[in-house]
Amino acid sequence: MKILVLNCGSSSIKYKLYDMTDHSVMAQGGIEKIGLPGSFLKMTLPDGTKKIIEEDIPEHTKGVQFIFHILTDPELGALKSLEELGAVGHRMVHGGEKFNQSVLLTPEVLEAFTACNDLAPLHNPANLKGVNAVSALLPSIPQVGVFDTAFHQTMPDYAYMYALPYEMYEKYGIRRYGFHGTSHRYVSQRVCEYLGVDPAGKRIITCHVGNGGSISAVKDGKCIDTSMGLTPLEGLMMGTRSGDVDGGAVTFIMDKEGLAPSEMSNLLNKKSGVAGVTGVSSDMREVIAAAHEGNQRCRLALDMYAYRVKKYIGAYAAAMNGVDIILFTGGVGENQADMREAFCNGLDYLGVSLDKAKNNTVRGDEAIISTPDSKVTVCVIPTDEELMIAKDTMALV
Amino acid sequence: MKILVLNCGSSSIKYKLYDMTDHSVMAQGGIEKIGLPGSFLKMTLPDGTKKIIEEDIPEHTKGVQFIFHILTDPELGALKSLEELGAVGHRMVHGGEKFNQSVLLTPEVLEAFTACNDLAPLHNPANLKGVNAVSALLPSIPQVGVFDTAFHQTMPDYAYMYALPYEMYEKYGIRRYGFHGTSHRYVSQRVCEYLGVDPAGKRIITCHVGNGGSISAVKDGKCIDTSMGLTPLEGLMMGTRSGDVDGGAVTFIMDKEGLAPSEMSNLLNKKSGVAGVTGVSSDMREVIAAAHEGNQRCRLALDMYAYRVKKYIGAYAAAMNGVDIILFTGGVGENQADMREAFCNGLDYLGVSLDKAKNNTVRGDEAIISTPDSKVTVCVIPTDEELMIAKDTMALV
Repeated sequence: MKILVLNCGSSSIKYKLYDMTDHSVMAQGGIEKIGLPGSFLKMTLPDGTKKIIEEDIPEHTKGVQFIFHILTDPELGALKSLEELGAVGHRMVHGGEKFNQSVLLTPEVLEAFTACNDLAPLHNPANLKGVNAVSALLPSIPQVGVFDTAFHQTMPDYAYMYALPYEMYEKYGIRRYGFHGTSHRYVSQRVCEYLGVDPAGKRIITCHVGNGGSISAVKDGKCIDTSMGLTPLEGLMMGTRSGDVDGGAVTFIMDKEGLAPSEMSNLLNKKSGVAGVTGVSSDMREVIAAAHEGNQRCRLALDMYAYRVKKYIGAYAAAMNGVDIILFTGGVGENQADMREAFCNGLDYLGVSLDKAKNNTVRGDEAIISTPDSKVTVCVIPTDEELMIAKDTMALV
Repeated sequence: MKILVLNCGSSSIKYKLYDMTDHSVMAQGGIEKIGLPGSFLKMTLPDGTKKIIEEDIPEHTKGVQFIFHILTDPELGALKSLEELGAVGHRMVHGGEKFNQSVLLTPEVLEAFTACNDLAPLHNPANLKGVNAVSALLPSIPQVGVFDTAFHQTMPDYAYMYALPYEMYEKYGIRRYGFHGTSHRYVSQRVCEYLGVDPAGKRIITCHVGNGGSISAVKDGKCIDTSMGLTPLEGLMMGTRSGDVDGGAVTFIMDKEGLAPSEMSNLLNKKSGVAGVTGVSSDMREVIAAAHEGNQRCRLALDMYAYRVKKYIGAYAAAMNGVDIILFTGGVGENQADMREAFCNGLDYLGVSLDKAKNNTVRGDEAIISTPDSKVTVCVIPTDEELMIAKDTMALV
C-alpha cells in the first residue's frame, strides 16, 4: 500500500509518500508560505537533488491539490494516479486527554479534536485544514490522525498535574501533555528492536534534542514522564525557547516591561533559548563554532544546554529507579558528538561509560556509543516520525 | 556575648536572644499584625508556655522598642539592661549578586542592599525597617546582615542563568538566586559535624521541605545548584506555591482569566501548591490526614509533592555525579516520617537504603535514618537559621 503522510502547519504542508511493502520513501517535499507572497513547493528528487517550484498557494486545499498534482506529474511524480494511494496519515499536534493513540479520522473524531483547539490555537486548526483539504479532493480515502501528545497519555497523574489551583485543570485542562510523542514512541520502540531486547522491564530515557527538545522517561514501553508541558515551552533549553523558567520571573518581566500575555509568550518562545542567551544564533552548529572561537556567551549557552539535559536524565533516572538505556535523537542528538559527550559527562554514578572514540564517529546513524562494559547502554537512534505515522495509518486501514 | 536575632517582615518581627557562651536561647517570640488592628506580641516563657500581650504596634520602630521593653521587663525579661546586648543580627532576604556572605551593616552596605529592593519588593524594605529601628534606638550597637541568598552565590553560571534574552540578566539581574540559604548552609555544615566527616569531597543534597521548600546540591561545602530561582516560587511544590510550572501555562492562564502580572503572581504564590491541588489545606498534617481518610485530591497532592522532591534529588545527583549524603530538614522534613519514606522510595539505584523502622521514630531530632550498609547516608537535621545568624553576627563583631 502507498501511504501519504502530511504535516500541516499554519503556513506550510510537509509531505512524504511511502511504499509500505518495504517502507521506502517514494516522494517527499513541502509547501511553504501558504497564503503569503512567494509561496512555493520544495521537493527532493529521487537522485537527492532539491527542486523548487513557485506557485501561488492561497490556502491549504489548493496546497494539497498542488501536492497531488506533483505526485502524479508524468515527469516529477511517483504515482500514476491518485487511486494508488491507500490512505493519508496526518501529524496532529494536540489531542488533549481525548486521544491516547492514533485513530481513523471520522466526523466524531474531528469534532473531539476541534475541542482541543484552545490548547494549541496555532497548530490544531492548521492540522484540521489539511484533513478537510484531503476530504474535499478525495472524499472516500481513509485518513488517520497521529497525535503528538498521545504517547504521553500513560503518564501517572502525579507526573502530569501542575500544583496550580485544581479548577485550572477542570476548567481549561491545564496539565502536562508533552509533545514529540510520535518521536519518543518511535525511538523508544526502535532502540529495543535495534538492541534485540524486550521493552518490558526496560527503563529508557529518550532525549529528543534539537532546535526543539524534549526528554521522556519510558518504562516497560510506556511514557511515565516527559519534559514538555501544557505547551512545548517547558523543559529543555531550545533554539529559541526558554525551557524551564521560574514562573515568578515570567510575571516579573511582564510587570517590568509592560508585556501582555501574548507578548510574553512570544518572548519566551521566540526570543529566548540558545538565541536569547547567545545573541548570535539559534542554530547549535553556529553556536558551537562561535564558542570554539572564544565567544563566552556561546560557551555559556552550550554549558546551560548540556547541564539541563543532564539534570533531566538524572530526574528521570530517579523517576524509574535507575536507567537501562539512554538514547539521543533529533538534530543535535543525532549529529553533534561533542554535545552528546557533554550530556553524558559525569554520569558515571549511573554506570554510564561513553565510548568517546566511537561517539565521535557517529553522525545520523543508529549506533551504540557506550563501552561494552557500560551498565547503561547509550545509543543514537535517528528519529522517523513520518514512518511512524505511515505505520500507524497502515495498521488502521 | 548576648546576641539578638531579628527577622523583620512587612507586618511581623520575630526575635530570638542568644547567650553565645553556650548558644542557649534566653528569650524568643514575635510581633504580628504590625500596622494592622489587633497587633500583639507572642513570647515563649522559660517554662515553655506561650504568653500573648496585646499592644498597638503601628510601625517597625515601635515594634523593636516594644521587644526591647519586654526583653528588659523585670518580670518577663531575660536582660537587666539593653547594655548587655552585644550585637543584633538580621535575617535579610535578597542580597542579589552583591552579598555572598554575612556583613557588618554599614551605610554603604545598606545602600547596596537597598539597590536589591526590586528583586524582593515585599521583604527587603521590611528587613531595612528593622535595621533602621534598631539604629534609632541603639545607635552604637553593631548590626550584622545575614542574607538568604548568600550561600547560593557559589553556583556556576550555567546553573544560575535562565535561557531568557541575555539583556533580562543585564537589565534586571534576572537569574536564579535561591533562598533558604542560611538554612542550607547550616544543615550542610551541621550534618558533616554530626557524621564526623570533612565537607571536602562530599556530595550533599539538602532537602529543606516544609510550607516553603527548596533543595540544594552542595559539593565540597559549596552550593552548586538550588531549586528556588529569581523568586521563591520555583522548584518544589509548597504549601501555597506552585513550584515548577510551564511558563506557557502562566501566560495561558493570564490570557484566559484576564489576570495582571500581580494577580497571576498572587495565584501562583498564594493559591497554588498543596492548597491549590487539594482545596483542603496548605498544612501537610491536615492533607496527610485527609488522604488517609480517602480524599483523592489529597492523595494526589502527596504523590506530586513526593515525586517532585525525588526528581530534584535525581537531578542533583546527576549534577554532582552521585550523592554521599541526603538530608531532610524543615517542617515536613523533620517531622513527617511517611513523607521522608516517600521521598526515598525508589532511590535504590543511587544506593539509598532507608531504615524504615528507625525513620518512623525520628521527629525533630538529628538522626541517621539509612541502614548501616546504605551507600548514601540519609539524615534528619533540624534547621536552625537563627543560631546560624547569631554565630555569623558573633564572628563579625
